[in-house]
Amino acid sequence: MLLDRRAAIAASAAATGAGLINTAQAQTPGVPSVTRILAHYITQARFEDLPANVRREGRRTLLNYIGVAVGGSRHETVDHVLKALAPFCGPAQANVLGRSERLDILNAALVNGISSHIFDFDDTHLKTVIHPAGPVVSAILALAQYRPVSGADFLNAMILGVETECRIGNAVYPSHYEMGWHITGSCGVFGSAAACGRLLDLSEQQMVWALGIAASQPVGLKVQFGSMTKSFHPGRAAQNGLTAALMAQQGFTSDNAALEGKDGWAQAVSRQVRWEEITQGLGSRYEAALNTYKPFACGIVTHPAIDAAIQLRNQDGLRPDQIASLELRANPLVLSLTGKTDPATGLEGKFSITHCIAVGLLFGAAGEKQFQDNVVRDPVVAALRRLVTVKTDPAVSASQCDLIARTKDGRVFSRHIETAIGSLEKPMSDAALEAKFLGLADGILPRAQAQGLIEACWKIEQQADAGALARKAAV
Amino acid sequence: MLLDRRAAIAASAAATGAGLINTAQAQTPGVPSVTRILAHYITQARFEDLPANVRREGRRTLLNYIGVAVGGSRHETVDHVLKALAPFCGPAQANVLGRSERLDILNAALVNGISSHIFDFDDTHLKTVIHPAGPVVSAILALAQYRPVSGADFLNAMILGVETECRIGNAVYPSHYEMGWHITGSCGVFGSAAACGRLLDLSEQQMVWALGIAASQPVGLKVQFGSMTKSFHPGRAAQNGLTAALMAQQGFTSDNAALEGKDGWAQAVSRQVRWEEITQGLGSRYEAALNTYKPFACGIVTHPAIDAAIQLRNQDGLRPDQIASLELRANPLVLSLTGKTDPATGLEGKFSITHCIAVGLLFGAAGEKQFQDNVVRDPVVAALRRLVTVKTDPAVSASQCDLIARTKDGRVFSRHIETAIGSLEKPMSDAALEAKFLGLADGILPRAQAQGLIEACWKIEQQADAGALARKAAV
Repeated sequence: MLLDRRAAIAASAAATGAGLINTAQAQTPGVPSVTRILAHYITQARFEDLPANVRREGRRTLLNYIGVAVGGSRHETVDHVLKALAPFCGPAQANVLGRSERLDILNAALVNGISSHIFDFDDTHLKTVIHPAGPVVSAILALAQYRPVSGADFLNAMILGVETECRIGNAVYPSHYEMGWHITGSCGVFGSAAACGRLLDLSEQQMVWALGIAASQPVGLKVQFGSMTKSFHPGRAAQNGLTAALMAQQGFTSDNAALEGKDGWAQAVSRQVRWEEITQGLGSRYEAALNTYKPFACGIVTHPAIDAAIQLRNQDGLRPDQIASLELRANPLVLSLTGKTDPATGLEGKFSITHCIAVGLLFGAAGEKQFQDNVVRDPVVAALRRLVTVKTDPAVSASQCDLIARTKDGRVFSRHIETAIGSLEKPMSDAALEAKFLGLADGILPRAQAQGLIEACWKIEQQADAGALARKAAV
Repeated sequence: MLLDRRAAIAASAAATGAGLINTAQAQTPGVPSVTRILAHYITQARFEDLPANVRREGRRTLLNYIGVAVGGSRHETVDHVLKALAPFCGPAQANVLGRSERLDILNAALVNGISSHIFDFDDTHLKTVIHPAGPVVSAILALAQYRPVSGADFLNAMILGVETECRIGNAVYPSHYEMGWHITGSCGVFGSAAACGRLLDLSEQQMVWALGIAASQPVGLKVQFGSMTKSFHPGRAAQNGLTAALMAQQGFTSDNAALEGKDGWAQAVSRQVRWEEITQGLGSRYEAALNTYKPFACGIVTHPAIDAAIQLRNQDGLRPDQIASLELRANPLVLSLTGKTDPATGLEGKFSITHCIAVGLLFGAAGEKQFQDNVVRDPVVAALRRLVTVKTDPAVSASQCDLIARTKDGRVFSRHIETAIGSLEKPMSDAALEAKFLGLADGILPRAQAQGLIEACWKIEQQADAGALARKAAV
């Protein structure tokens, strides 16, 4: 055994430096040079060539990001990381969104990325469950405060970053996700490196290195769901990708085939890979156009029921005091994942389908405010929760539901949801995104400042200095 | 497909927060609570209980680390990372070994960890191929400059860090390594978190979090061998582990079963795991006692031949100008890994067994200096290389060799090596470690300063301020 290990050690030791002599050795026959193909695309793609729908989705992604980062910024998770790292931060170069602190750009990227994920209310690329903006925008927004850039270049870099992380995610999903990786962090690092590298005007070779340095630093495990470290993942991915791009800019080398090579990223983090998801249709098919935004601050499985409840309230004028009973017919997943009937905390409320329906009917919303402890413990809310019964049926898909309300005076109202608001088929409107933004910023930024930010996001393509957004989102 | 994915998304969304309600859900039946067992051990183990041989190996590990970090400090790899990150560094809190820069402790840990690995001349835990000191000492040496600590506490923390990373490495080796991970970075992050956490006096729960935050940040892929990113791995592991410990100290939570839980570290990075490697014999069996040090700055497969060549020179007085021919009998691996007969650069010299033998005979050494371009291109060295023939035989193990020299006047000298110097069976002597140290420091630190450093390492247990070591290793 010792000798076998010695042989392995010798082989390893000898491999050291071999790549430098002949990097092609690291490449596997038949595998496309994915890292270089991506680097070429990222360094060459022009803002002018982005289709209008992609730009529009980019603006919406940006607006949603700033909203969730401001909204999460006062959470104790952010307090803790700031307290831990403040003694070691560099010059005050970039803003912490929603707060007064200014940090060096690497730490600002970390902290803003953490804030953006705290409420689990960020954007979602549904094919991979990646939350694309956190790793990418956290990094380039901080970088833009250090190295000024136009809004058009900023949006282009952002879309290239989102494209990079989502395409890489597509290539390894679902195997990568099933292995335990929190894909937002483990793929997000590439999005950050790509977007930052583009804003740093890296050459193709430097971009290859940036992606390679990023490949050595995937972040995030699903075991952390439920702890503060979950939010750490997109923040650290943003910071790692920015670090990678800055190092590559100075000539710090990585292997030229870090993604696809033998003993490379894909081999280490996934059992299956579809390279064509990365390489096909670059510049014509945009994953960045498939971004979605949560209208409700809880798991997607509850969204059809909340959508139905809000429609009964807003369209039929149903008032809670009129209701005798509520019946939800839904997929069995709804009960197995969110079957908590007597939630005691805000967090437990997110796992209570009856609470979700109750707040939809009472408030016409299910934002972060509706999952605060005091709302969950409100006797009026609790009484309404108790009127709900749930019938599950495997024939009803997870995207569908029926909600039937019977009033005290014997009337029946009902709503069938085929796909809930916030899905790709039924995206949130710009107005709904604005309302979500204002709700998140409420109590943190003055209303006029929040309105100004919304305006600035919609007009990002005309801004001369994209970094100004970060200043406008700080207090 | 869309619905399947939606279901997966819903499940994922619902899992968010579930761990907070009941962390035990993350634990798999029959799997020991590895993270907590380790945290308990790391926070409780006392310096006074360390066996003398473990302390001695700790001192040797420390000396070797400082030597390689000083020796690597002037490489362009270090220049690049310093140039890239200097604008974002925090206060001047800790020294860069071998240089004049002072950085915040997080960046100092990164840079020193990079320096320590540049020559591939660092320590090796042979069972896992982990280079234990880089991630651990880089982190705690920087931390010790910010938060003073006695040498005894420093050595205790160092050994606990090495123990942590090597035991975790044992648990997942070889599967983890075969998947593509550069195990020094991917396990080293735990060593750094453990050692830093101990020096920060973390509670057991905080240590659980520190290990958990570390688990989300494994660093390093073998594809990078041959590029600068290989050296980045131990540096980033040091920095990530220190970051994790600092965050945990401020109450930043992770899952309580980040190593062993469902969707945790081990599941994501290895196909097999032996938990008992982590949990058994804590405090009685020490992996830290099994550390080894390379006498030669090249792959282990060449070491028996170099050992033999140096013995022929030093013990038999053989001079190169007397030699008519040299014949090496060795395992086939030697030729397949280091068969380059006409090396043109220093790096290629490391992959040339004939060059290794030639410098052993000429200089009685095979340190970094013997693998510089000018030595490889020296006509005298080249002529000697051409006198070597290699015969391979699978019956000769990779740890063995025979070297036979025939002189111009017809005499025959030969050496049989059973296990080369630097192996566990035939460790480098303290004097040899000192000579290696002085060779590495030569041209960087004045001789008297280097001698003082050696003295300080041997007497670390008596030092009142371990951080002073870093100042003594800077210029």
